[in-house]
Amino acid sequence: MKWDAWGDPEAAKPLSDSIRGLLAQALGVSADQNNILTLDEVKVRPSTLTDAHRAGLAAIVGDDYVSTEDGDRLPRAGGKSTLDLLRRRSRDAQDAPDGVVIPGTENEITALLDYAAREGIAVVPFGGGTSVVGGIDPVRGQFEAVISVDLRRFDTLLSLDEVSGEAILGAGVTGPRAEALLGEHGFSLGHFPQSFQYATIGGFAATRSSGQDSAGYGRFDDMIRGMRVITPAGVLDVGKAPASAAGPDLVELFSGSEGTFGIITQVRLRVHQVPEVTRYEAWSFPDFATGAAALRAVEQTGSGPTVMRLSDEVETGINLATTDKIGDNQITGGCLAITLFEGTAEHALSRHEETRAVLLAHGATSLGEEPARLWEHGRFGAPYLRDSLLTAGALCETLETATTWSNIGTLKAAVTEALTSSLAESGTPALVMCHISHVYPTGASLYFTVVAGQRGDTAQQWWAAKQKASDAMVTVGATITHHHAVGRDHKPWMNAEIGELGTAILRAVKDTVDPTGILNPGKLIP
Amino acid sequence: MKWDAWGDPEAAKPLSDSIRGLLAQALGVSADQNNILTLDEVKVRPSTLTDAHRAGLAAIVGDDYVSTEDGDRLPRAGGKSTLDLLRRRSRDAQDAPDGVVIPGTENEITALLDYAAREGIAVVPFGGGTSVVGGIDPVRGQFEAVISVDLRRFDTLLSLDEVSGEAILGAGVTGPRAEALLGEHGFSLGHFPQSFQYATIGGFAATRSSGQDSAGYGRFDDMIRGMRVITPAGVLDVGKAPASAAGPDLVELFSGSEGTFGIITQVRLRVHQVPEVTRYEAWSFPDFATGAAALRAVEQTGSGPTVMRLSDEVETGINLATTDKIGDNQITGGCLAITLFEGTAEHALSRHEETRAVLLAHGATSLGEEPARLWEHGRFGAPYLRDSLLTAGALCETLETATTWSNIGTLKAAVTEALTSSLAESGTPALVMCHISHVYPTGASLYFTVVAGQRGDTAQQWWAAKQKASDAMVTVGATITHHHAVGRDHKPWMNAEIGELGTAILRAVKDTVDPTGILNPGKLIP
Repeated sequence: MKWDAWGDPEAAKPLSDSIRGLLAQALGVSADQNNILTLDEVKVRPSTLTDAHRAGLAAIVGDDYVSTEDGDRLPRAGGKSTLDLLRRRSRDAQDAPDGVVIPGTENEITALLDYAAREGIAVVPFGGGTSVVGGIDPVRGQFEAVISVDLRRFDTLLSLDEVSGEAILGAGVTGPRAEALLGEHGFSLGHFPQSFQYATIGGFAATRSSGQDSAGYGRFDDMIRGMRVITPAGVLDVGKAPASAAGPDLVELFSGSEGTFGIITQVRLRVHQVPEVTRYEAWSFPDFATGAAALRAVEQTGSGPTVMRLSDEVETGINLATTDKIGDNQITGGCLAITLFEGTAEHALSRHEETRAVLLAHGATSLGEEPARLWEHGRFGAPYLRDSLLTAGALCETLETATTWSNIGTLKAAVTEALTSSLAESGTPALVMCHISHVYPTGASLYFTVVAGQRGDTAQQWWAAKQKASDAMVTVGATITHHHAVGRDHKPWMNAEIGELGTAILRAVKDTVDPTGILNPGKLIP
Repeated sequence: MKWDAWGDPEAAKPLSDSIRGLLAQALGVSADQNNILTLDEVKVRPSTLTDAHRAGLAAIVGDDYVSTEDGDRLPRAGGKSTLDLLRRRSRDAQDAPDGVVIPGTENEITALLDYAAREGIAVVPFGGGTSVVGGIDPVRGQFEAVISVDLRRFDTLLSLDEVSGEAILGAGVTGPRAEALLGEHGFSLGHFPQSFQYATIGGFAATRSSGQDSAGYGRFDDMIRGMRVITPAGVLDVGKAPASAAGPDLVELFSGSEGTFGIITQVRLRVHQVPEVTRYEAWSFPDFATGAAALRAVEQTGSGPTVMRLSDEVETGINLATTDKIGDNQITGGCLAITLFEGTAEHALSRHEETRAVLLAHGATSLGEEPARLWEHGRFGAPYLRDSLLTAGALCETLETATTWSNIGTLKAAVTEALTSSLAESGTPALVMCHISHVYPTGASLYFTVVAGQRGDTAQQWWAAKQKASDAMVTVGATITHHHAVGRDHKPWMNAEIGELGTAILRAVKDTVDPTGILNPGKLIP
């Protein structure tokens, strides 16, 4: 993963002429901002760890697994939000964790937490570094130093129960590695968020991740059957059975705990046999409301697609759903929807047929397989495009929320208006695109992509728009995040989300498992 | 609900000659124990509430809604476990709450909790009174008095969002009333636990209830989208969206809180349209292991029955699954399985066909519709039979657990051996029957019914067997309860279930929301 942009340098997506044309025409963006820094040019805030600290940490994990070098600190300096990427392009001093520690065992993590609590060093657990909410920012809180604890050595398949369809994976296993390890045995996890190629099992659990196949395989928190968490107060090993009535569900308390309660080392997960077949069909709807009603009918009938998503008119118009074709002649008018069906041949066929009947009865026109295959092919590509847009002088970011079906239209209008009006105030038109990416019987998520011109201090420009959008979500009763988590960026809205008493409960849990408050300060809990 | 037995006196089930024959032949039980007391014969522990307390409570809820009469106290003296029913037949002094209070508004509940905290009075929230784990026992803890707070006046449908399929129901709404209120609008909750006819929405939420249609409509905790809880520290209103990544799921912390964290007043629930059709098919398997493997294949394929259950050879042999036929000539050899399919005509048909194909491929023989319809007809009848068995001198009780598919056989053998050997030590053979009543992709629940002869102190006799069974569940790694909750009876195994740190977390939450500890003392938290 590049330290200052998304992913693999080989996979960078230069902007096509058609996209450049679109930017110039719609947003007045034409001047490249060649503000990318080489590592040599970056001013990194010096590490505050003393030699004694370095020795103390090395005594626990071994000398090879502690670093205070800038080259190791910078890649763990933050996540991959647009705000993060803008910071990485700054010629001012950049903050970074004061050290990087890469433990190899749970006992080493316990010793690290003991040491950090004793010495007053903050600890940020680190998986794939793909947070887009400031979840891994090197915040020191009341302490002098902060270390990044990288879980990459927890990278194995610890067990697989093929009968029950349960696997225990190490927290540092990445998405592709999970699929490879399970695939050797004919199994799959089926968790494909946009961060899939880099993010880790521990990170998915800590942030309540949700993947693009959630209609079929569920959110990551639905997949979790149990987990082991090392906290400063001891080890928690929760989740005994497929379901239980033995009191409050503590797995659900540590799912989404974002490194503030403990360091997740192992996650026990529901897995499924690699599907025999995948069936594809894309659809066109005359408008977003008709499409949303059709998706709702499918989900409430329970006809069971593995993937089901719907782009609005704007997103459809520029082919955002099929990233290789963005800006080309559009695939369809109206709104594009994608469906995939997986499982045994009989299962996928019966799901496809029932879903097709419901969609056709609700105003869909079939577009055949091709657009659905194109979507699948480009499904992890969008973040590369953002990097090119930033360099080309455009502001680009995404945000997401969820609400009930009856409130979807209100939420979409409110967030679009908030973004558009805030960016207009900064002096730029904005292209606000939206899709439904995750469906539930009672509602759905809305995922927004915004492209505008950079004006003035771009970070401040975006933060103003983001605040207005988050306020709008709260005002209309939606959640402030469907799958990006809270981190530092959404924390100002947590009291609105869970109330003062909810916050007091999170603080009480925090005080119990992390009495000195070393774990991921400044995140999640207001 | 009768104060000393299950349900409606009109629905009592006298034992048939065939059952009496079975009891005499298999268990040596023939002597009736005519130990049922009339209300006049019961010695109730006198109320410890002072006149000032009575006046203080009446000032909050009104004089009509406070009682210290034995006739009001006794029906809230405990739940409906066999241990409860044996207590109700005791000629020794029986404990009961010192008063019964029936608030009508959330403000009254807030005032009640303030008053109770100030005066040092314990509070037991009361719904339908169907706990089988001692969840509503009148435990005073460190206080002099305990009151039962009955939620029956919270009995309305507060809102219904027909588009999203979400309803807000008052905590005191019973199962049948929920179906009636929703049914007026063409909707159904689809939650049918054995306690359905008496238990309440608040009770279902507080205990993580699971109904017989859980394969289709989910556990009650799956249905919950949000809830309002009045705690001594304030009101909690959680659950904003169908799904969220905004930190730990606090709904899941209050689901299963068993009245120890607060009083649930409203629950927002997923509801569905009343199914167009219900399709029935019963099946026979040569043995339990074959049947379990077939159910597993259905669930892992995702072919979607609404109900799917499997009785073992013993339960099948005495027709326990179809309570009207118990002791008659058996419907089938081997093991009986029941499947139901609901929804639109097309949906139910496609689910039925796919499920049938999987079951037939895994060793099932169809028995047609009739046994499945008989099961549905008698589905709420079993508790009545237990009352008659107790009167006839037999010991009868149920218990339940859950584990992964690979561990089902081990769990079944271990619990059966624990019950059989403990009851043998007390001097009686035992009939131990078992069924799978709830299925998940990674595992299933096991529900045991035990019938034996009463020997010596029957309560002690059963408690010894129950302890051994619970120890066996812990030893083989199963959960101590799949849907009966913890209460007082399962509390000794909670540390084994969630660990010392898990317990410390529950205590920290408790101290935050109920700092004086008045709420349901002695339950859930070790």
